[in-house]
Amino acid sequence: MSKDNLMNNADENATAREQLIDAASQIMREGDTIDLSLSELSLRAGLNSALVKYYFGNKNGLMLALLERDMTKIVRSLDSLIAKSMTAEEKLRLHIGAVIDTYYQYPYLNRLLMRMVRDNAPADAQKIADQYLKPISAAYATLVNDGVKDGTLRPIDPQLFYFTVTGASDRFFTARQVLQHCFDQPDISEEMRDKYREHTIELIMRGILA
Amino acid sequence: MSKDNLMNNADENATAREQLIDAASQIMREGDTIDLSLSELSLRAGLNSALVKYYFGNKNGLMLALLERDMTKIVRSLDSLIAKSMTAEEKLRLHIGAVIDTYYQYPYLNRLLMRMVRDNAPADAQKIADQYLKPISAAYATLVNDGVKDGTLRPIDPQLFYFTVTGASDRFFTARQVLQHCFDQPDISEEMRDKYREHTIELIMRGILA
Repeated sequence: MSKDNLMNNADENATAREQLIDAASQIMREGDTIDLSLSELSLRAGLNSALVKYYFGNKNGLMLALLERDMTKIVRSLDSLIAKSMTAEEKLRLHIGAVIDTYYQYPYLNRLLMRMVRDNAPADAQKIADQYLKPISAAYATLVNDGVKDGTLRPIDPQLFYFTVTGASDRFFTARQVLQHCFDQPDISEEMRDKYREHTIELIMRGILA
Repeated sequence: MSKDNLMNNADENATAREQLIDAASQIMREGDTIDLSLSELSLRAGLNSALVKYYFGNKNGLMLALLERDMTKIVRSLDSLIAKSMTAEEKLRLHIGAVIDTYYQYPYLNRLLMRMVRDNAPADAQKIADQYLKPISAAYATLVNDGVKDGTLRPIDPQLFYFTVTGASDRFFTARQVLQHCFDQPDISEEMRDKYREHTIELIMRGILA
């Protein structure tokens, strides 16, 4: 096999793998569910569902790969935010906005995280904690402590603050169901997202400023 | 049949019906799930699972009855809070604490609500909105508007504020999974609940005070 052929194969592998992850993400987003059917996945990705076994071992492996894709982005962007030369207050404002945008894009993410923690073996749950949750927790401690040191933030528990931020951001999007089925609103528009982003940043920042 | 017999039968009916609802609530709380198995339910309640069909038609009917039990309490206590002679600020402080306590007691409640809205026919979803969500929404509008009128609260959208309060309160308890499986904490203690209650009331009240 020529080098070109090998590269094409490698490209195709990357593409098929990513297509499956993308398809899973879209199904979860649109259906507001974290339950995947292999036949729907195969239809959506335009690929044979046997490829799930080939690339991920099983459906759980695919869900772990999706979790990795989404959580790695969050951890990386938090790291690069912390490295910026801005005040802690400015960083936190940007961060809260980014959390809203993340849950708008991946409304399933919190439920997927909980499911993966609950349904995987303790060692795998621990790996999820080590790779994603502990770095996020450390980033929150840095942001809050920096703000307390420079006198802009009041001293609060960064861990509890993390629950507040993600909870307030996440809820709006699990509310899609209620809006769609009870209040006849077809979906959450970008305009509503922007309004909620502004509301949440303002409320939380007022809540923690010294 | 004598009147005494009739009354005893009525009592037994009420008791068996309530026992089934209680058992469903306990299973959901302890397992951190909203998926019920009839055999587990029957074991927990000490009753034949055929009674689910008798009292509720099916499992979905039992889940609707549990939702009714829990949501009715919330709507009633909001109504009686609004009727009290206190400032809007005092009422909101009490209310946020009550939301935390509710999610501590019924950590499944938000997921149950979303599931019932999604999986029932549009007319039933609409009934859920009319019976529980619209009264809660109206109560939030009253509380916020009263506080804006007396000058203690800044003007905010009561609907978005509702998402903030319930989201911030709910998240802590869906985090049980993470605490248990990744950070080796057996469960959320009453002490942690109290600490989080104080944290959340303080943060949100600072966030909305004028």
